[in-house]
Amino acid sequence: MATPVGLKDLTIENITENVHAINSQCDNRRLKYVLERVVVHLHDLARETRLTTDEWMTAILFLTQVGQISSVVRQEFILLSDVLGLSLLVDSIDHPKSKGSTEGTVLGPFHTHEAEHALAGSLISQDPEGEPLLVLCMLKDTNGIPIPGVKIDVWETDSKGFYDVQHADRSGPDGRAVLTSDEAGKFWFKAIVPVPYPIPHDGPVGKLLKQLNRHPYRPSHMHFMFKKDGYDPLITHWLTHILSALYLKDDPYESTDAVFGVKNSLVVQLKKVEDGEQAKQFGVELGSALLPYDFVLVTDEAAANLRRSKAEEAMAGLGRRFNFIKDLPVPDVD
Amino acid sequence: MATPVGLKDLTIENITENVHAINSQCDNRRLKYVLERVVVHLHDLARETRLTTDEWMTAILFLTQVGQISSVVRQEFILLSDVLGLSLLVDSIDHPKSKGSTEGTVLGPFHTHEAEHALAGSLISQDPEGEPLLVLCMLKDTNGIPIPGVKIDVWETDSKGFYDVQHADRSGPDGRAVLTSDEAGKFWFKAIVPVPYPIPHDGPVGKLLKQLNRHPYRPSHMHFMFKKDGYDPLITHWLTHILSALYLKDDPYESTDAVFGVKNSLVVQLKKVEDGEQAKQFGVELGSALLPYDFVLVTDEAAANLRRSKAEEAMAGLGRRFNFIKDLPVPDVD
Repeated sequence: MATPVGLKDLTIENITENVHAINSQCDNRRLKYVLERVVVHLHDLARETRLTTDEWMTAILFLTQVGQISSVVRQEFILLSDVLGLSLLVDSIDHPKSKGSTEGTVLGPFHTHEAEHALAGSLISQDPEGEPLLVLCMLKDTNGIPIPGVKIDVWETDSKGFYDVQHADRSGPDGRAVLTSDEAGKFWFKAIVPVPYPIPHDGPVGKLLKQLNRHPYRPSHMHFMFKKDGYDPLITHWLTHILSALYLKDDPYESTDAVFGVKNSLVVQLKKVEDGEQAKQFGVELGSALLPYDFVLVTDEAAANLRRSKAEEAMAGLGRRFNFIKDLPVPDVD
Repeated sequence: MATPVGLKDLTIENITENVHAINSQCDNRRLKYVLERVVVHLHDLARETRLTTDEWMTAILFLTQVGQISSVVRQEFILLSDVLGLSLLVDSIDHPKSKGSTEGTVLGPFHTHEAEHALAGSLISQDPEGEPLLVLCMLKDTNGIPIPGVKIDVWETDSKGFYDVQHADRSGPDGRAVLTSDEAGKFWFKAIVPVPYPIPHDGPVGKLLKQLNRHPYRPSHMHFMFKKDGYDPLITHWLTHILSALYLKDDPYESTDAVFGVKNSLVVQLKKVEDGEQAKQFGVELGSALLPYDFVLVTDEAAANLRRSKAEEAMAGLGRRFNFIKDLPVPDVD
């Protein structure tokens, strides 16, 4: 590829095409396309707002703080993406769902890779103040056929609304586990009833929410991530409606979730273990909270087909010729 | 303002308007507008590229690294803005220039506030290996009237291409000073001939440039920043053409500057002190490098008028009704 020349006297009007010109030396066509769009949108943002040097510097310092407060146990850039609706959008784009399958939603910043593999029936939360919850699930495909051998990540906060990694003095993972569905597609475990909680709001993202007059709360929920070869990964969570007079009846954050993660199909009603046989079978007290649920996964092939057709629509909307490279659209950007 | 309700079941198609709805609670109308455009462009970027979860995570980790490598002496987010052409664009938008005035260009990440005030004629670089340079300047307005009392920040690298703050063992500021123009609008100092150098490329921005097959070099230059009440701040730098056979004749980075900061009007030809009287007057050796230059500043009023008319054009292009708040355009975003 020819080296671009003559990057001189760049102006408000011609800077964008010249940045494209020098970036067009990139061999990775997908990166080249993504960066072309990054540059277009960044420049249009500045032109449309008439961005000032002071505002630019405020943004530079804000992003620096977002990076600097991040650590192995805190991811403030994911929080930022969450509160701007980007995370939900990317999940929707990358994990399209066929009819009848379980909807996905935001991953959030608190998934870790340190959860231990747990046997069916394990207690995943050691918080003695949590309200015990029995979770009985099944995994199926869109034809209703059970799916065995799925790796299931589950994670939730303690009864005060904090994930294990938010406790400076923690000794190891808690409120999280990795399970596997059995031959009948089933998995079950004991946990605690989720509670509403604020996303971490003592950092730059919290300050931004405050300036926007937005609250940092999420409705009570429990996260799940499902993986098995041949199936599109499902990242989702339940939003747990309230069990009893002990809890708020209607979770007030369901319609104003700080990270836009609520879907009606994921709002679940907590039940109670009212059958003595069932209580005995699963080793829980009669009257314990109960959540029975079937998750429905989409095959890799179905997801890929959906992604392709949506990508074709989007490229047609842009009016660009393109090819698929590894199933991702790459227009001619030179 | 009414609290938005019903943030549920958000999709690729309706997420953007719903993020706007909840952000519209913000009292600061300018912030609300800037954030509206941030959200539109971020979401469009994801939709147009069909951004994957893996690519999103790569971006999250990249931005985190950019924040984490930044420190009091390194600003990697400014570097990122520079190599994407955003810095040059923002300077052009916020500091429009009237005809006949000196053009502006990028600030770069190495301006500091610790330079000492220096008297006229001071030597600002203590590097004994630098090629001595006498700088003789005058500050004027667009009518040619001298401007006294202007605060002038000047900064340059040492002879190896490093700013003072890039040396871990430095004892204080070097290669930088703050000067003031005298009653005749003049200021002068002794420095060293600038050299080409790479922007810091051992961090995430350097890795990005490498992936793009771009070099990290800037042509040789010397930075200036001018401030005086009543005048629009001028941030600029000279690009110093080469003096003699000791140096490369044509700076090869002038047409491929990594940060897009080259303007032909700022490319200066180094001269030599060839007059014995002049050498004596300024206390330099006969044959020393010499740079005589007149800078022309724009008044606050002229800059504000230019900003306003350009903003009106941009808003008309967007087809939006708007008001000016503190001279910045704010459309009705509710």
